[in-house]
Amino acid sequence: MHPAVTTLRQQLAQDGYDGIIVSHPSNRFYLSGFRAGDIPPNETAGFLLITPSKALLITSFLNLDEARQEAPDFEAVKRERQIGVTVGHLIRDLGLRRVAFEEEAMLVGWLREIREHSGDGVEFAGASDYVSRLRVSKTAAEIEAVARALHVTDLAFNDVAPRLRPGMTEREVSWLLEKAMRRYGAQGPAFETIVAAGPNAARPHHRPTDRALAEGEPIIIDVGAAVDGWNGDLTRTLILGEPDARFKEIYAVVLRAQEACLRQIKAGMTGEAADAIARDIITAAGYGDAFGHSLGHGLGVRVHEAPTAAQKITAPLPPNSILTIEPGIYLEGWGGVRIEDVGVITEAGVRNLTGAPKLRF
Amino acid sequence: MHPAVTTLRQQLAQDGYDGIIVSHPSNRFYLSGFRAGDIPPNETAGFLLITPSKALLITSFLNLDEARQEAPDFEAVKRERQIGVTVGHLIRDLGLRRVAFEEEAMLVGWLREIREHSGDGVEFAGASDYVSRLRVSKTAAEIEAVARALHVTDLAFNDVAPRLRPGMTEREVSWLLEKAMRRYGAQGPAFETIVAAGPNAARPHHRPTDRALAEGEPIIIDVGAAVDGWNGDLTRTLILGEPDARFKEIYAVVLRAQEACLRQIKAGMTGEAADAIARDIITAAGYGDAFGHSLGHGLGVRVHEAPTAAQKITAPLPPNSILTIEPGIYLEGWGGVRIEDVGVITEAGVRNLTGAPKLRF
Repeated sequence: MHPAVTTLRQQLAQDGYDGIIVSHPSNRFYLSGFRAGDIPPNETAGFLLITPSKALLITSFLNLDEARQEAPDFEAVKRERQIGVTVGHLIRDLGLRRVAFEEEAMLVGWLREIREHSGDGVEFAGASDYVSRLRVSKTAAEIEAVARALHVTDLAFNDVAPRLRPGMTEREVSWLLEKAMRRYGAQGPAFETIVAAGPNAARPHHRPTDRALAEGEPIIIDVGAAVDGWNGDLTRTLILGEPDARFKEIYAVVLRAQEACLRQIKAGMTGEAADAIARDIITAAGYGDAFGHSLGHGLGVRVHEAPTAAQKITAPLPPNSILTIEPGIYLEGWGGVRIEDVGVITEAGVRNLTGAPKLRF
Repeated sequence: MHPAVTTLRQQLAQDGYDGIIVSHPSNRFYLSGFRAGDIPPNETAGFLLITPSKALLITSFLNLDEARQEAPDFEAVKRERQIGVTVGHLIRDLGLRRVAFEEEAMLVGWLREIREHSGDGVEFAGASDYVSRLRVSKTAAEIEAVARALHVTDLAFNDVAPRLRPGMTEREVSWLLEKAMRRYGAQGPAFETIVAAGPNAARPHHRPTDRALAEGEPIIIDVGAAVDGWNGDLTRTLILGEPDARFKEIYAVVLRAQEACLRQIKAGMTGEAADAIARDIITAAGYGDAFGHSLGHGLGVRVHEAPTAAQKITAPLPPNSILTIEPGIYLEGWGGVRIEDVGVITEAGVRNLTGAPKLRF
């Protein structure tokens, strides 16, 4: 059994719950090892129901066999067509009285069904991040799992970046990256690969189009490999041909901001203090308004998880958390620059897990 | 503006709602054209808020630009970090009193935030399939869009099937299929490709492993291309080398059941009556318990949608709906057989949109 289940049970007892429904796919995988995929938002591959003495995985007939193989510490229970009916009946039959659920992963319709079938007098309490927070500080094995995903990402990037040529489309580059990640051992991309050329690079979350790469324009590549259920995340900004003065200037500001973060962030610093290291440098250079997103996010079995390094986040960065460090500048009509590494946050500072080289002038 | 928005507004007026929050990604895309991806369950690319006079798309700073381009009929509104805060404020500022939401796509946490920020006295009513049902009967253009996705799927299957050899792994075959789909114009796979060889074929939703294909064993391939936001779905069962008598017998039962459905299903028939056409044949052959899933599901902007052809489904199949027809037999330790075509359901019968050939003996 995953040690986090023990911690979770202690927490439940402390908070007066006699059970929890774990419906977030990342938490389900993290606690049980069950790898089946959902069709979000309303087709779930399964829920966990954890009580002081029981660890159940409620799933469909279609996945029972995988459930037993991948999650041997959990008892697989076959669900009815409506999963809420089965979960409600289990809660009733186990005599649970106060059940926690993850409000960030529980549909209103599911909760209605569960209530309708669990009998009278059961109290359901929505808890936010109740399980997710157990994942924030990583064990050595978990850090290693993320490092492997990042390494596959680096290999794919290093393979594809030298092959970029003017005339190739964003879509072609994205597909080259996906193929390379698979070749180096990824189960697939961790998220939709971003390849944004020229003015498209002004959109932080641009999806690849048929626009061709051209000389002298910024090209943002944001890519990650998924390896054994853990995720990588890497951003580099490239240019083909000769950069002009404007590109060099903006690139230098972002690189300076990014590297200052790598040097200065450490565990215990608040999310907003970490963010401010980059933001102050970018603002001082006159581009404050053009850095429209936050500095970074956690990374693990989920692509975005705690901790968060952003304005107004007063929570401290926990030791052994993993953080993306990715400042950017985006200018409508021109394009953008973003540079992202991923590091382990320790009391001594950031241990950078990313190996892909950065453009330097 | 998509004509379904007009129908939706009439329905809202009839039911006494002055607005609806559309949070299901398929419905958001269907009504608005907005293509951004979510990171489920709790990171949404945006919600629609539709009132008699307004059509809003609430999305992040990161996607505003795409929102304006892809969903020109909707007014793009920038959200706060917590989308529920922004949606709540909009409901308050627009003075809405009775707001419908999709309970199959609304997280308990989102609804809590929306309630907290919409002011007092607003009634929120969870509706199930309120928008999805508008998608069930397809227009000619929508049928054509699904046909295109199915055609790309057929091309990929026809390309890869003759290249299968003993010793290739399930994972390799799945990857060949994905690459072929991309080559023929897919944006990607519509769902995780299933390649299940030998005993693995006893699992209807098997995920590809490193198991090698071998002669004389059933191989189930279930694959679909996503093309411009619409989905394909195709299952074929293959065998390398000489099939034995058992395979031939089971295959013949499934094929007979599947082709009976293609001949007999028509609009107006109930979901359970359609399912029974296949189930009766399989049961009469002695394999009733081995057909553990339903006959089929709708297909469109979502891989699984209405209508449903399954036991206990008394709703009739609407004209111009699209249905997968996919009976199967699964035997633990041996493997399985499934054959799936996709058809348009008309009053005159099934118009088969699938072109991939079936194994025949």
